[in-house]
Amino acid sequence: MTEKMTITFVTKNKEKKSDIKKMLGDKFDIQFTSDLDLTEIQSLSVAEVVAFKVKQAYEKVGTPIAVSDSGLEIESLKNFPGALVKFVNETIGQEGITKLLKNVENRNAHFIAAIGYCDHEKNPIIFVERDKGTISMEPRGDGWHFDRIFIPKGEKRTWAEIGRERKNIDSAFRRALEKMSHWLVEKGT
Amino acid sequence: MTEKMTITFVTKNKEKKSDIKKMLGDKFDIQFTSDLDLTEIQSLSVAEVVAFKVKQAYEKVGTPIAVSDSGLEIESLKNFPGALVKFVNETIGQEGITKLLKNVENRNAHFIAAIGYCDHEKNPIIFVERDKGTISMEPRGDGWHFDRIFIPKGEKRTWAEIGRERKNIDSAFRRALEKMSHWLVEKGT
Repeated sequence: MTEKMTITFVTKNKEKKSDIKKMLGDKFDIQFTSDLDLTEIQSLSVAEVVAFKVKQAYEKVGTPIAVSDSGLEIESLKNFPGALVKFVNETIGQEGITKLLKNVENRNAHFIAAIGYCDHEKNPIIFVERDKGTISMEPRGDGWHFDRIFIPKGEKRTWAEIGRERKNIDSAFRRALEKMSHWLVEKGT
Repeated sequence: MTEKMTITFVTKNKEKKSDIKKMLGDKFDIQFTSDLDLTEIQSLSVAEVVAFKVKQAYEKVGTPIAVSDSGLEIESLKNFPGALVKFVNETIGQEGITKLLKNVENRNAHFIAAIGYCDHEKNPIIFVERDKGTISMEPRGDGWHFDRIFIPKGEKRTWAEIGRERKNIDSAFRRALEKMSHWLVEKGT
């Protein structure tokens, strides 16, 4: 029996932790940490933000590590707010987003989930997945910020109205995790 | 005659270069550089972004160095966009800002200029100055992005309409430079 490789995930999100354990727990020894105090760079691109963070995380920890982040790209706003979702939440909020889209026909948006992985090779690998959708006319439902305005493709309700459970069925985060899992297994670390 | 201390400014802006030479050229040997490829962190605070940048710049250059940055804080938008002006310009633009302020009574805003200085003490000192003003109903005039929507206190025209010359008379950037100059002279480096 070979020993499992340890991968540390930087997250304090309970649902993500549970997804990660389910998806990777058989093949890897999963650890969690949340206090690395990572710098987020100014970029619309979630992949870029994650790449910078995971490289930094590896420098601090020195063992295989993964970091995730998410964002929202709205087509008619030239991909605003992208990775800058936190600042939008703290300032103009979801109401600001729907106000910006008032009288705008194209309401297409993508929810972006990215996971970055880095090990001794110091070459961050980024796994990005997207969920297609549209932005609602007004924020609706109770939920985590963008869940209140994001209507996934084929639905009429926002993620907040659908509820977390349904969201997880086809979440971009889980697909990105799956990609990473396949990649790691193939790499045979 | 003592030799003047050399300070390198990270800027490629011609008007800033001329301001810097005029203000500090007598007392210091001023050099310019523009290719340091500095990382901008995700923060609404211009002072925080500048502090991070100038520390990084000193690590790359190893001699006294200064970096400047600017931002716009809109009161009723909880200081959005702050230091994230570049991304607003590239995405929702000035039209986005005026749309967000539609039917909003409080149009107060501050233009923020910050200069960060760092030397062998590795303790970045940040000089921040603000110009009070309001946001116009629509972008007006030809000019650098936020100049088209920022009306300085006591004026009815936007900075773009007033023109650059007038703007420089009391610009926050020049006042921040002055602060830095006094501080450096007092410090007696």
